[in-house]
Amino acid sequence: MSNIEASKKLAAYTAVDRHVKPEHRIIGIGSGSTVPYVVERIVQQGEEANKGRVFIPTGFQSKELIVSSKLALGDVDEYPTIDVTLDGADEVDYQLNCVKGGGACHLREKVLAEAANTFILVADYRKNVQYLGTNFVQGVPIEVVPFAYAKVLQNLHHILGSPNAVLRMAVKKAGPVVTDNGNFIIDAPFPREKMLDPYIIMAQIKMLTGVVEVGLFCRMAKAAYFGNEDGTVTVRWDDEKVEQVAAPE
Amino acid sequence: MSNIEASKKLAAYTAVDRHVKPEHRIIGIGSGSTVPYVVERIVQQGEEANKGRVFIPTGFQSKELIVSSKLALGDVDEYPTIDVTLDGADEVDYQLNCVKGGGACHLREKVLAEAANTFILVADYRKNVQYLGTNFVQGVPIEVVPFAYAKVLQNLHHILGSPNAVLRMAVKKAGPVVTDNGNFIIDAPFPREKMLDPYIIMAQIKMLTGVVEVGLFCRMAKAAYFGNEDGTVTVRWDDEKVEQVAAPE
Repeated sequence: MSNIEASKKLAAYTAVDRHVKPEHRIIGIGSGSTVPYVVERIVQQGEEANKGRVFIPTGFQSKELIVSSKLALGDVDEYPTIDVTLDGADEVDYQLNCVKGGGACHLREKVLAEAANTFILVADYRKNVQYLGTNFVQGVPIEVVPFAYAKVLQNLHHILGSPNAVLRMAVKKAGPVVTDNGNFIIDAPFPREKMLDPYIIMAQIKMLTGVVEVGLFCRMAKAAYFGNEDGTVTVRWDDEKVEQVAAPE
Repeated sequence: MSNIEASKKLAAYTAVDRHVKPEHRIIGIGSGSTVPYVVERIVQQGEEANKGRVFIPTGFQSKELIVSSKLALGDVDEYPTIDVTLDGADEVDYQLNCVKGGGACHLREKVLAEAANTFILVADYRKNVQYLGTNFVQGVPIEVVPFAYAKVLQNLHHILGSPNAVLRMAVKKAGPVVTDNGNFIIDAPFPREKMLDPYIIMAQIKMLTGVVEVGLFCRMAKAAYFGNEDGTVTVRWDDEKVEQVAAPE
């Protein structure tokens, strides 16, 4: 296992051990490359612990994971309040603002993050940054209604002062990526200074006609777990405290 | 022709005569029962006037109207700036804020309203009110992503202090209405006092995760034309001036 995979697994295991408690019945499962380790660790809590629990997915990937792990699948329509949601992120800043949507699932992820009493991020050390946009240079993912995408691109140009927002193109189909909700994704790079308080730019973009959801999650998480290469885990909390968890024996 | 039909026709004809000018090339055509009269009057300007003009529809109805009238059909992706858009409304207040979306087309209508240099409303006298919600009691139409509708209903309950927002059900299909964009519609009644400045509640609702667009158009129109039963037309302008146009000879 590579260092990066090992650090993802470590972050996921530590987060599950601390936040998925015996009394939790409704659990949100996010998307991304760290999430399989989250589910793996939950399964290790045993059949008894998982009896009567319901797991709510953010999209196709997490739904498949829940089903193949023989856990009970639920829907957010049925369970609009979730005990704890665990999810990955493309980048997380020191205030626990994060960028999500590299996988084009950020609308469903945001619904499950909002629905959760406790929202926990898990990632590897590369996602742990001071300001968003440090390493995740493809920019902020924005889900838009297909009919309005050209107008949204024009309006983003005005807001961001940059013509570099682009429609995300698919690789294994012709034309643009289509989300699980039938929409398009625009990736909008923007100036570093706007990232000091991402909420402002998030709200400006969300208000544009045709925008469905912006891949910026502002101060929604309780904690973020980052696995490090040396086997330690860095935990950032929503009060800006930082904790170092020693490597397991 | 009933009085109401006659008043719609009168409003549409007067608005077209004043605002669809020979130099206009790109024209937005809205949705609703007044719009056929708008297109009828534009056709009466003659083939010469309409040669080289492109007409952008807000949905299926206006697209069919444009095509059956032998006018040239265009797309907002190709023409993101429109000379003038004419559209109906479910209700218009004294500041030209309006409610739209009884026909579930308000997202596309808003895109075309924003894209227009001049946005003109046409309606019959029943739509001319001091405050929104006076006669249009079904409430504000809100387009939502299907996945998130239950969560949006829950959040609307918090914002509006009323549990009476409902998913709009279809008549000629089982289950809910599905919009031209594949989404659902929630109709949200809300307290009269919020209508003094509809922009505030519009922004609050639009910011909810899962909301695509709100059927409140705040101060976007240049003028609104209301046909009256006595054959006169009342014109409200964006500076709150009111004009009475005499009945034609």
